[in-house]
Amino acid sequence: MTEMPLPAPGATERTRIRRIPENAVPDRAALHHVLDAGLVAHVSVSDESGQPYVLPVAYARRGEEVVFHGSTGSRLFRSLADGQPTCLTVTRLDGLVLARSAFESSMNYRSAMVLGTARRLSGDDELDALRTITEHLLPGRWADCRPPSAKERAATMTLALALDECSVKIRTGGPEDVPEDVTDPVYSRVWAGTVPIHEDFGTPIRSEECLAEVEVPGYITDWRRP
Amino acid sequence: MTEMPLPAPGATERTRIRRIPENAVPDRAALHHVLDAGLVAHVSVSDESGQPYVLPVAYARRGEEVVFHGSTGSRLFRSLADGQPTCLTVTRLDGLVLARSAFESSMNYRSAMVLGTARRLSGDDELDALRTITEHLLPGRWADCRPPSAKERAATMTLALALDECSVKIRTGGPEDVPEDVTDPVYSRVWAGTVPIHEDFGTPIRSEECLAEVEVPGYITDWRRP
Repeated sequence: MTEMPLPAPGATERTRIRRIPENAVPDRAALHHVLDAGLVAHVSVSDESGQPYVLPVAYARRGEEVVFHGSTGSRLFRSLADGQPTCLTVTRLDGLVLARSAFESSMNYRSAMVLGTARRLSGDDELDALRTITEHLLPGRWADCRPPSAKERAATMTLALALDECSVKIRTGGPEDVPEDVTDPVYSRVWAGTVPIHEDFGTPIRSEECLAEVEVPGYITDWRRP
Repeated sequence: MTEMPLPAPGATERTRIRRIPENAVPDRAALHHVLDAGLVAHVSVSDESGQPYVLPVAYARRGEEVVFHGSTGSRLFRSLADGQPTCLTVTRLDGLVLARSAFESSMNYRSAMVLGTARRLSGDDELDALRTITEHLLPGRWADCRPPSAKERAATMTLALALDECSVKIRTGGPEDVPEDVTDPVYSRVWAGTVPIHEDFGTPIRSEECLAEVEVPGYITDWRRP
C-alpha cells in the first residue's frame, strides 16, 4: 500500500485528496508514469443545459501537458476549445483486492486527474501533438504511417491541457483486513489476497488489404505495456 | 466494423451519436453487454464553482440501472446524491487499429454512456446493490466474504442511475484505409491490421495474513473476463 504525504503534484485545494489520502502520491514522476501507462482518458464536457458527458479519448502526455484530439464537427469538442473548464482522468486497473470483508475489498489502480481549460493547437504544434498521440499508443508507428493530409487536419481538433492542477492516486499491495476478521473462526478461513489484472497485447491480425509479404514490424511485436 | 442503424438504446437528442454514427449500436443487449464487461466506470460530478471532476468508480449493472458507491464523507459524492445531473461512462479497449494513415488509425473498443440523475439507495435495496457490485467484480465472492457492518454501511453511499438515457458505441474489425493508401507505392508496404488488447487476470497473490491451508477458491481461478 502506497503511503506518501500530501500534496499531490500541482495540488490545489480542489485536487487535494480527501478520501483515503494515503493513496495520494506527491511526486511529478508518478504523475507522468500514470499518464504514460494509460491508453484511454475520460474527459468531461457539458452541453448548454449543463448536462455533463464523459467521453473516452486517445491522448498522450507531452512534457507538462496532455494532448488529445477529436472531430472539428463535434459540438462537445468545440465547447472544450471555447474554454469550458474540464477534467481529464486516466485510470489503469492493476488488480482486485480481496479482503475478508466486502467493505475492505478494493482494487489496485493507478489514476491521474487533470483539471483545467484546454487550448486548441494549430500548425506544427498540432502536428507534433498528433505525432505524440500516435507514438504514445504505439512507439515507432509515426515514422511508418502516412501523416495527415490538409483535409484530414481540417477535420481534426487537437487540444492541450496543462498539468497545472492534478492529483494522482495509486493503490498497491494486499488487503488490509480489520483484525477481528483475521482471527474470526469463520472469516479466517476465507481466502484473502490480490488478483492481478494485466493489460496485454495479442497476436497482430493482418488487414485483408495488407500484402502478405509485409512483415509485422518489430515495434509491434516487441512492444510491452508500461 | 460494426455498422448498425440509429437509434441507440434509450437514445435521445442528447445521446444521439453524431460522430461516426456507424459505430452506434441500437440494441439493449449490447448496452448490457458493455456495462457487464467493464470493471471501472468514470463518473462526472461538478463542484460549486462548476469545475467538473471525472472519478473512477467500481460499479455494476443491476437490471435496468447501474449502481456504484463512494464515501458518505465525499463532498462530490454528496452532490450526486443531491440530484446533480451526471454521466457515467464505461470503456473497454479491445485493440489498436493500425491503418496506413495516422488519420484512419483508431482503436477497437466497447463504450457505454449513461446520462441522468442518481438516486441514493438505502436499507435492503442498498445492501443488494453492494452485493451486486461485489458479484460483478468477482462472481461468487459475496457468499464468502463478511457483509458490511452497520458502521461500514454508514460510511458508504450507494447510488443508482437508471438506464433511461444511454448511448453505446462499439468498434470492431480492421482498419479502413483510403484506397489511395492501399495502392500507394510507399504506403502499400506499411503493415496494416489490428493489435488485440486483452485484459486478463494473473496468478492470485495470497495475503500475508491468509492461512496457507486456505485454498484459492474456484470462483477466482476459473473466472475469465467477458
